[in-house]
Amino acid sequence: MLKSNDPGLKSWVHVPKGSDFPIQNLPFGIFKTKYLSPVAGVAIGDYVVDLVYLHENSYLDGLGLPAGIFNQKYLNDFFALGKKKVRDVRERLSELLRDSNDEMNKAAREIALIHMDEVQMMMPVKVQNYSDFYSSEEHATNVGSMFRDPKNALLPNWKHIPVGYHGRASSIVVSGTAIHRPKGQIKSPDQELPTFSASKKLDFELEVAFITCGETKLGESISTKAADDFIVGFVLFNDWSARDIQQWEYVPLGPFLAKNFASTISPWVVTMDALEPFRVEGPQQVPQVLPYLAFEGKKNFDIVLEVALKPEGSEETVVCRSNFKYMYWNVNQQLAHHTVNGCNIQVADMYASGTISGPSPGSYGSMLELSWNGQKPLQMPDGTERIFINDGDTVVMRGHAERDGVRIGFGNCKGKILPATH
Amino acid sequence: MLKSNDPGLKSWVHVPKGSDFPIQNLPFGIFKTKYLSPVAGVAIGDYVVDLVYLHENSYLDGLGLPAGIFNQKYLNDFFALGKKKVRDVRERLSELLRDSNDEMNKAAREIALIHMDEVQMMMPVKVQNYSDFYSSEEHATNVGSMFRDPKNALLPNWKHIPVGYHGRASSIVVSGTAIHRPKGQIKSPDQELPTFSASKKLDFELEVAFITCGETKLGESISTKAADDFIVGFVLFNDWSARDIQQWEYVPLGPFLAKNFASTISPWVVTMDALEPFRVEGPQQVPQVLPYLAFEGKKNFDIVLEVALKPEGSEETVVCRSNFKYMYWNVNQQLAHHTVNGCNIQVADMYASGTISGPSPGSYGSMLELSWNGQKPLQMPDGTERIFINDGDTVVMRGHAERDGVRIGFGNCKGKILPATH
Repeated sequence: MLKSNDPGLKSWVHVPKGSDFPIQNLPFGIFKTKYLSPVAGVAIGDYVVDLVYLHENSYLDGLGLPAGIFNQKYLNDFFALGKKKVRDVRERLSELLRDSNDEMNKAAREIALIHMDEVQMMMPVKVQNYSDFYSSEEHATNVGSMFRDPKNALLPNWKHIPVGYHGRASSIVVSGTAIHRPKGQIKSPDQELPTFSASKKLDFELEVAFITCGETKLGESISTKAADDFIVGFVLFNDWSARDIQQWEYVPLGPFLAKNFASTISPWVVTMDALEPFRVEGPQQVPQVLPYLAFEGKKNFDIVLEVALKPEGSEETVVCRSNFKYMYWNVNQQLAHHTVNGCNIQVADMYASGTISGPSPGSYGSMLELSWNGQKPLQMPDGTERIFINDGDTVVMRGHAERDGVRIGFGNCKGKILPATH
Repeated sequence: MLKSNDPGLKSWVHVPKGSDFPIQNLPFGIFKTKYLSPVAGVAIGDYVVDLVYLHENSYLDGLGLPAGIFNQKYLNDFFALGKKKVRDVRERLSELLRDSNDEMNKAAREIALIHMDEVQMMMPVKVQNYSDFYSSEEHATNVGSMFRDPKNALLPNWKHIPVGYHGRASSIVVSGTAIHRPKGQIKSPDQELPTFSASKKLDFELEVAFITCGETKLGESISTKAADDFIVGFVLFNDWSARDIQQWEYVPLGPFLAKNFASTISPWVVTMDALEPFRVEGPQQVPQVLPYLAFEGKKNFDIVLEVALKPEGSEETVVCRSNFKYMYWNVNQQLAHHTVNGCNIQVADMYASGTISGPSPGSYGSMLELSWNGQKPLQMPDGTERIFINDGDTVVMRGHAERDGVRIGFGNCKGKILPATH
């Protein structure tokens, strides 16, 4: 076990009970303040630690970090240093922030720590390439049951291939960014011709995405074993989806405008290192996978996930409680599959899991499944009902792993839906 | 008409008859030599004009160009200056290279011009986002006839939507890059289970891609009229495709590993300005398109395209002669559609047309169509036959527009297939 993951560790930074960011987490992000341009930071308790300050004041000496590595708009160059270097920085930060450590005096601590109320979180990386998988058996089964045949809900390739497709990198935005309802072509089966309008079936999809810290050359593949070295960490991912646009456009080349108007991520990259203690076995894979998809060890993660929906001017209500451990295909298999044909990966690529639905109706990761395509409207605390998302609604995703009194959380992945533009 | 397009213009640079690069073209690219790191250049005749030299020696003064704008690995920052600035540079280069111009003395000319034999062409841009359309009616009809119903070959959405999907930006490579045959899961309909092997049905797809020079914010749309301001130029695009991998993986989310192992582009960005004289009407669109897809003026381009196949150690043979003018959906419609939902575009995005097939069998833009799914093998000059592409084969795409003795060409888009890696 990494020393940084020791449940006994305490920090000299006060960490409120229930915080997503104890000293065992230390996720990386990009923040700005009224006085600071975007720079890299690490979350602890209610504070962000300014990594530029630590670096410039010799607290990170001996790690071989390039000058200015944290004084950047994105973590791309930092992640490009590789998984071991990122780990070294996290271990050093763990040491520096430990209650037994007095390297930083009171003045230094006051300068280095900025309260979260005073920062604005930015996109942690400039996303190079974005792919989305479809790796939850329950989600694929639910969709297949609703739109195809409940008895043959899963398509023939699903248990052989971690099915995935390419998405749009430019429209991935950070938590807190408001999203305009998309417009597009819509044609319900009973209409003869398509019409152009704002989507009437706007949905969320609860996902977790991993971010890469290495690159390969064209023609190279990454084994399921080597995949761990290329995955630096995770964020929550809301793959907003316009179901009516999707239905009309997606045959034969897949979803396009139904998805690429926006995706929202949580701002903190929770490292795979911080999540090591929460590895669990995934579902048994039957039939046996092809050799290039075989793997050893625990490759799923026990991360509790929830989605809350907050109508304008009302309280939020949790509409979905799921878990990342339900994924049939794990991240190592996803990356091995993506590169088995020689497709090259780059630093700061993002790979999302696909909607994470669990076995029970309350664990379904989209409104489509929760309302079972409109048949079971969801009750809101303000007395209204939802089949899909209304203008003014805010969707908040949260996730955390917890054991031995340690809670490794992601913070919020939040987005409010504004009316369509004119 | 732009002065630079005047068919009467001649350059003091010798331009051989049949060259793709007369003074009326002046496409932009990135090149390196034994002595020079990658920098920006412009093609004329058999030469590349070193834009860094011109800029540093005041030949481009008065254009308001930032220092070092051409001393870069990619044209992204140059294109980010916008279409008007790129036009200004091209107009100035046209003036400087004209036979009546004596601003450059013999010594300057000798330094600025580098013979193409001495340069290696690089990727012209770092591709930010890549999408691929499916805009040739003949191609969509051929594919639908082979794999679905010849009487209902086009899917119901095809004449309403410029169907497209997202592709992989990282694996787009420049002409001349050798490509390893991809491996992957394959399952023919008569097999019970998939197997893992090198693709046995490797194909090319003849396409033209446009590159953007502007950006929009999330939520903004680009009209068909405004699209011209965002499109800086075109390259030839080979969308290599592994048909057997594609067949097993593509339902329901579209092609993925069948495409993302590599795409090849020609190195020179031929500007939309240089192609202005070659605008033509496209096919009539029936039924009428929705208002956001309506457009005025000539939005297709008469660009003659061909694909040659060269077996190892043998002569090449032209297997396809097509034309960019056949596209049912034009580039303005593609960009308007892509952004109508608020999807934001970035500088140096690449948008490919989809396979460009014409009405006659010899104009089909893929081996799949040319060999009609294997029923009509193609004869090679060395006596062998082809249904798909063999190891050792080189595929060369070429394209040019020609009128009034002026030929605006793209140069080669070439790639050799190497055996699969072990």
